[in-house]
Amino acid sequence: MANETHTEQPVRSSTAFISPEALLEHWQGHRRLTRSLIEAFPEEAFFQYSVGGMRPFAALAQEMVVMAGPGMQGIAEGTWPPLTEDSFKVKAQTKAEFLQLWDETTEQINTYFPKIAPERFPETITVFGMYTGTLYWSILYFIDNEIHHRGQAYVYLRILGLEPPPFWQR
Amino acid sequence: MANETHTEQPVRSSTAFISPEALLEHWQGHRRLTRSLIEAFPEEAFFQYSVGGMRPFAALAQEMVVMAGPGMQGIAEGTWPPLTEDSFKVKAQTKAEFLQLWDETTEQINTYFPKIAPERFPETITVFGMYTGTLYWSILYFIDNEIHHRGQAYVYLRILGLEPPPFWQR
Repeated sequence: MANETHTEQPVRSSTAFISPEALLEHWQGHRRLTRSLIEAFPEEAFFQYSVGGMRPFAALAQEMVVMAGPGMQGIAEGTWPPLTEDSFKVKAQTKAEFLQLWDETTEQINTYFPKIAPERFPETITVFGMYTGTLYWSILYFIDNEIHHRGQAYVYLRILGLEPPPFWQR
Repeated sequence: MANETHTEQPVRSSTAFISPEALLEHWQGHRRLTRSLIEAFPEEAFFQYSVGGMRPFAALAQEMVVMAGPGMQGIAEGTWPPLTEDSFKVKAQTKAEFLQLWDETTEQINTYFPKIAPERFPETITVFGMYTGTLYWSILYFIDNEIHHRGQAYVYLRILGLEPPPFWQR
């Protein structure tokens, strides 16, 4: 019909900087690099070495795990585990044990991320009952926090005289 | 008409993890934090202090500036300045001078980012005549590289006994 008007303005794909699938792959690429860095650390240094009164890499990596796995489950399902001091305690006794936890988290992320309805990404959400912001901001926070702390662990390893994996290797 | 069919499948906004506008704001938020960290450094330490054979914060921040300003101009306009050893040399003599360069880069990013046609983000591009990947990957690389090196500068400042700005403060 000539006078048919389309009032709906379909939002074109051009409104995406990045798709959810690509963002997930980008994150897992970063997580592969963090995993390589954990592997590059001497066993004892991973759990104990630090400078400037900071936490050892194991504690920083524990924080990444606590945010990522339960965080994605919380976002996808709306169920939030309480975050306590104990959540941030490193329970793994060996690097191998920690890497197993790391790999379980990889699976958790891969399971829960695709369950998030994409129209939710710009919505406001409160994660872990504490932090309120857009959903994409929360996920970017998990990723950025990992990059931030991993960069710090790079310094630890350099001070120990060891060569970290290149930053662009994912 | 009853038999009217819509063969066009408008791609819904749900294919976006984040919009270009929100990504730009996210990046500038990170850049505001990096700026605060530069301000938190003692003048001399900014240019000279380092550990583990690494570069001082000024050299790391110079790399951020070199990537971000010319990088966004290159992506937007297709003109790439040659990246030479000199590009990475710190020319600023004072923190105030460096911060001026930082603020000029802020303007460059704000000028060039909106000129990128959004349908280009998933396209493959070669930046600085050297690095080939999707356009969104290149921009995320600029951002992630800044977070990575800023995290390292956090360690420098901690070793110097000074308190960096909180990571979530943008």
